[in-house]
Amino acid sequence: MSFFVGVDLGGTNIVCGLLDEEFNVLAKSKQPTEAAKGSDYVLEKIAVMVETLLREQNIAPEQLKAVGIGTPGFIDPVRGVCVFASNLRWNEVPVSDQLGARLGVPVFIDNDVRMYVYGEAMKGPGRGYEHVLGITLGTGMSAGLVNNGQLYYGGGFMAGEIGHIRVDDAESTPCGCGLVGCLETIASASGIVRQVREALAAGRESILGQWFPGEEAASVTAADVSRAYDEGDRLAIEVMNHTGKLLGRGLSYAVTMYSPDALIIGGGASLAGERLFKPMREELQKSVYKGYWERLTIHPGTLIDDGGVIGSAAFAANRAAGIV
Amino acid sequence: MSFFVGVDLGGTNIVCGLLDEEFNVLAKSKQPTEAAKGSDYVLEKIAVMVETLLREQNIAPEQLKAVGIGTPGFIDPVRGVCVFASNLRWNEVPVSDQLGARLGVPVFIDNDVRMYVYGEAMKGPGRGYEHVLGITLGTGMSAGLVNNGQLYYGGGFMAGEIGHIRVDDAESTPCGCGLVGCLETIASASGIVRQVREALAAGRESILGQWFPGEEAASVTAADVSRAYDEGDRLAIEVMNHTGKLLGRGLSYAVTMYSPDALIIGGGASLAGERLFKPMREELQKSVYKGYWERLTIHPGTLIDDGGVIGSAAFAANRAAGIV
Repeated sequence: MSFFVGVDLGGTNIVCGLLDEEFNVLAKSKQPTEAAKGSDYVLEKIAVMVETLLREQNIAPEQLKAVGIGTPGFIDPVRGVCVFASNLRWNEVPVSDQLGARLGVPVFIDNDVRMYVYGEAMKGPGRGYEHVLGITLGTGMSAGLVNNGQLYYGGGFMAGEIGHIRVDDAESTPCGCGLVGCLETIASASGIVRQVREALAAGRESILGQWFPGEEAASVTAADVSRAYDEGDRLAIEVMNHTGKLLGRGLSYAVTMYSPDALIIGGGASLAGERLFKPMREELQKSVYKGYWERLTIHPGTLIDDGGVIGSAAFAANRAAGIV
Repeated sequence: MSFFVGVDLGGTNIVCGLLDEEFNVLAKSKQPTEAAKGSDYVLEKIAVMVETLLREQNIAPEQLKAVGIGTPGFIDPVRGVCVFASNLRWNEVPVSDQLGARLGVPVFIDNDVRMYVYGEAMKGPGRGYEHVLGITLGTGMSAGLVNNGQLYYGGGFMAGEIGHIRVDDAESTPCGCGLVGCLETIASASGIVRQVREALAAGRESILGQWFPGEEAASVTAADVSRAYDEGDRLAIEVMNHTGKLLGRGLSYAVTMYSPDALIIGGGASLAGERLFKPMREELQKSVYKGYWERLTIHPGTLIDDGGVIGSAAFAANRAAGIV
């Protein structure tokens, strides 16, 4: 029996998961990242977490076949290098070489969104489809594409930054990327919240203004907007409809370029469900050639908590086996 | 020495080219397609054209290693079947099997745009780049993507129908695909001409109206619009600027999804050159994350006449060699 470890490495916490050959999560552990202590410290902490997981589950070290790590930032998955990760303050950290030498197993690293999508493609609703497009609607918005078990990277491993397309010239919110009116300024958890806060600040009537009077508006979340939507709040409904529509338009470009069989929508804001998916589907159907629409299946992400861990482990398993 | 044949199979003419191992065109022949006589007739005609080319160039049949065919329509390149080609009136024609058995060499078939882009990637300005995106601006607008010598297909071999994205809600021309306001209703040779004709019909002043008075407007070409542009004609300049801008916006989506290293712009309307490319580049730069822009090189297509023949032959050579 072989085992794999998937690591979800964030700026705040490290989550390690031990998985079997079918990518079931057998055990997990969580530790603060303590990124300020530097990459050597963090990688050693991961190594100890991996060893502890194996020991606690009575698994011999030689049964561990590969470790996968997903982390936000700019990753070179071929060299196994974290080129730049702002939340870790890492520059050119040779994660695969360093951790691989320490643990004595192959270690693979990739962007957290691609790892998440890989997990949904292997173990979530994307399973069984040849071409899986996944997006995450969280603080930002990003995408990953898996074709027959292979991630699509494009030049510089940069393909799929769908959050940074411009879909509506009336939108003019500056984006962290340097552009103006990027899709993720709308279609993300942060984007939904920003729209609501701006409307409240402009004096717009809403139950959200009653729930979060004055400066409390700063603590509105996307989940609160869903609650207000269910109360029939016009502002919440408008924001969800607008967000869904622009999301659908943005997805129409991705669907046309990639021709996926399955589209998976994950990330915190995806929990809005049909409130967001209905206007999204309507706009998407109106905006793509029917040949794409007819073959497309749309699924909410299902690996809410464990997507990164499962995806990282599955990616590492397939890379180690030479499948991808 | 090995040789390859590339076939550009259109509704009107068949062009066959004989190529050496470096994909130089050694000889070409051209015959009317006579599609009305059916697929058996057309495939036999191609077989005779291939045999004649070899004989005339004193090449032994066994030196021919593969034949590639590019044709408009919906192709299954894996099965080697022309699933549907409206201009040939072909349905489910097993081109690879039938012509391969007749000629005794491997025969490969794909969509004409993908073959053209493959040619530009192998023998045109895309040579040496890992990720090559090519578009054609002709009667329609389409794209092909070549990653490390491999065409990207997506589900149903449909990826990249960039002509059928919606980039501007103010555009409302019905498209043959069933949608409204598709990019190819603007950014194509036909789209440029349509914009000019509609403006003339609406009474718009233009030197084109003097050159093509009354019903003669029906014979305006994209090349005429370039000529008028060079005379300082305001309508022609407006049409080129608008077309270039929407083209740039459309390309921003393709560039974000694919992250290409090289973008190649071919097809008849690409002969407008900087008249179209300048507004296109300006909009593209404004609409993509700078990481994409900085790595992107933009090239006019160079294989104007022979792109289909070269691409088909190169594709067949690489498929036969198991490279792709």
